[in-house]
Amino acid sequence: MEKTRVSLLIENVDIFTVDDDYTEYKNGCIAVDGNTIVYVGDMQEGRAGYEGDEVIEGKGYLALPGLINTHTHSAMVLFRGYANDLPLWEWLSEKMWPLEDKIEADDAYWLSLLAMAEMIKAGTTTFSDMYMFMEETARGVDEVGLRAVLARGLQGPDESSDKRLKENRMLWERWEGKAGGRLKVMVGPHAIYTCSSDYLRECIELAKELDTGIHIHISETKGEVTESIEKHGKPPVLYLEELGLFEVPTLAAHCVHLQDEEVDILKDRNVSIAHCPYSNLKLASGFMPAAQFMEKGINVSLGTDSASSNNNLSILKEMQLASILGKAVAKSAQVLPAKEAVKMATINGAKALGWIDEIGSIEVGKRADIILLDTNKTHYRPIDDMTALLVYSGYSSDVDTVIVDGNILMDGRELRTIDLDRVYYEVDRIKERIMK
Amino acid sequence: MEKTRVSLLIENVDIFTVDDDYTEYKNGCIAVDGNTIVYVGDMQEGRAGYEGDEVIEGKGYLALPGLINTHTHSAMVLFRGYANDLPLWEWLSEKMWPLEDKIEADDAYWLSLLAMAEMIKAGTTTFSDMYMFMEETARGVDEVGLRAVLARGLQGPDESSDKRLKENRMLWERWEGKAGGRLKVMVGPHAIYTCSSDYLRECIELAKELDTGIHIHISETKGEVTESIEKHGKPPVLYLEELGLFEVPTLAAHCVHLQDEEVDILKDRNVSIAHCPYSNLKLASGFMPAAQFMEKGINVSLGTDSASSNNNLSILKEMQLASILGKAVAKSAQVLPAKEAVKMATINGAKALGWIDEIGSIEVGKRADIILLDTNKTHYRPIDDMTALLVYSGYSSDVDTVIVDGNILMDGRELRTIDLDRVYYEVDRIKERIMK
Repeated sequence: MEKTRVSLLIENVDIFTVDDDYTEYKNGCIAVDGNTIVYVGDMQEGRAGYEGDEVIEGKGYLALPGLINTHTHSAMVLFRGYANDLPLWEWLSEKMWPLEDKIEADDAYWLSLLAMAEMIKAGTTTFSDMYMFMEETARGVDEVGLRAVLARGLQGPDESSDKRLKENRMLWERWEGKAGGRLKVMVGPHAIYTCSSDYLRECIELAKELDTGIHIHISETKGEVTESIEKHGKPPVLYLEELGLFEVPTLAAHCVHLQDEEVDILKDRNVSIAHCPYSNLKLASGFMPAAQFMEKGINVSLGTDSASSNNNLSILKEMQLASILGKAVAKSAQVLPAKEAVKMATINGAKALGWIDEIGSIEVGKRADIILLDTNKTHYRPIDDMTALLVYSGYSSDVDTVIVDGNILMDGRELRTIDLDRVYYEVDRIKERIMK
Repeated sequence: MEKTRVSLLIENVDIFTVDDDYTEYKNGCIAVDGNTIVYVGDMQEGRAGYEGDEVIEGKGYLALPGLINTHTHSAMVLFRGYANDLPLWEWLSEKMWPLEDKIEADDAYWLSLLAMAEMIKAGTTTFSDMYMFMEETARGVDEVGLRAVLARGLQGPDESSDKRLKENRMLWERWEGKAGGRLKVMVGPHAIYTCSSDYLRECIELAKELDTGIHIHISETKGEVTESIEKHGKPPVLYLEELGLFEVPTLAAHCVHLQDEEVDILKDRNVSIAHCPYSNLKLASGFMPAAQFMEKGINVSLGTDSASSNNNLSILKEMQLASILGKAVAKSAQVLPAKEAVKMATINGAKALGWIDEIGSIEVGKRADIILLDTNKTHYRPIDDMTALLVYSGYSSDVDTVIVDGNILMDGRELRTIDLDRVYYEVDRIKERIMK
């Protein structure tokens, strides 16, 4: 039999496909041609059928779908080591906003690149960002080779709110479907406490016009809920439902404090929740009942939030925390078992971003977003249930190889598409200027 | 001026001493002679005063006191990837105990060694263990060069409970103060739900006779508290107070569910709490209010619990989780700030183990238990408040060098005193035999 020539073959690798049946392969094989997965299965059949221009020996490695970070503000990596141990509002209004005013477009480019470097090192292949200067982040994504969904952070009304909306529209016009299909654009109203009803309506109209989704913070803190009830006579989700927000596909970050009626609306409206457990704990925002939401049928994905409220950009860490925290919150060690946690970090993220046809699992026909973890480490011994080992014992530093759209972005933990020294230099220069 | 010759000099290193003032040095120097720290301070003075037989260039590294794991069951590393996603009682009685019966003395030696390998890789220099076959663990500690406090896990009465008590006594006779002073022995009654009142009294008597402390699980689950109230008419701490347990220095693991009156007793009796946040979440045991206990003046240290309810042996991970979880539980982002978290992982551990004169901080006269973290990593950028970066962004894999009692146990992440391949081989063999 003639072998089919493909661009990349990963041999002798253990695989979690995270397909509908959570199919696993011991000593399997993945064939990638261009940006697409053309074979996943056992090694013998793979070797018989395919010949690779490039071959990765996968023995001792575990292949997973690339991890998906559905909520971050990547350029805020600037503030990672600054103003810790503060509650959300004080941290945001007194520390972040005054400094954020000093960030310029070119800064955002370099800061995003630092965030992308960290995300790649932690196995993230797709991220969903909401911030300013998104053009610069888009440029970075294009160059670095990651996959992203970008939304211009929108607040208003104020003297710049129209300009921001325009920027979101331009971002869509310039970048939607670009970078070889690796970029998507959503509309990013920040939250109900930073946007007026009219401004939110404008955001909804824009999303409808562009036929895209909305990325928004909902009920991150108890204060947000109290204020909504005072101001609108109802909690945030009911208020947003009335405004018509959920008529467009919605990605809702946080959702820590919801009433039962709100949970039902999110379910009915197919809203996905970007759960950010690390940030919720660190800012003392509260405990989102992830297992309860998932039992109701809501799609829950994971987000790191920004590196200044986390302070890592590691979905593997969020996955681990989401599982163990979710158990404690539900008072049941059985809920959120390891496989559910892996799904939250992968396929649920793809669903949340409206990208399930192309990413989130290792399946024939999907884009080749694949990571390899080095499992020859002390903390994986003795070898047993690998899903449990990954979820409860894994470290981000186990990620060895990162492939996006068929391109290798990291290999042996060395970044191939980012000049880290240059990024460190530029970020230091920016920090010097802004934070002095 | 004549330079003093010392065995080890660490140069140009950033230092968190974790002394009473939390003194930090940028570009500092540590001089070690034999097993003792003889200088810690700035580089110029250090270079002028000391000449080292061995010199470590510390540029780009952060020196910390070795991390202290105050509650683990090291040989249970065997069950790391087994029987996850279960609640404490089912996991313990249905899964762990039947298999534990099959563990033999020689197994415990190799399993402890695997645990020690993981602990060293995660920067732990001292651990406090409660399990069976402690002689084997002691032998391992002696050979590997770590520091440990060992307690024979005690349950009774049953046909073996007298034998167990005898083993605890023999362990003390053979190992207390041995291995160059790196070993201590405590008495290890497992918990009130596994020991009768009379048996607990025997344990207390033994501890008094040996003039040592007691290591015990207290109020890990709500069920334990309910049962205590049903059986003894009072919650666990009141019951143990009545038995006289706290007349000996006590290290109480977990303490998740305490009434105010119990907290006051622990404070009055100078009981230290080994807080195990990861295990408490994973087994859905509950949320210990760490900040509230510390505000009352209770000494709270950190423990990993076993690798089968965690599933890592990383105090850095517990430190991070203890801080962010403690904030959320206290509903305040200000509590448990980064420096408090570092203290929990170091000096509070030394206090909990009755070892504060010798370990827990980098100070002249103390034993040289020092770890170096490689901070030239993406997740520490941009460089800013290093304590915050360490606590909120650090990974166990950043630990590069581990020194215990002046001896280098790991260097460039390579273990110097453990043959890992041999350990993996033996542990696989044990797993094959026990878990088939």
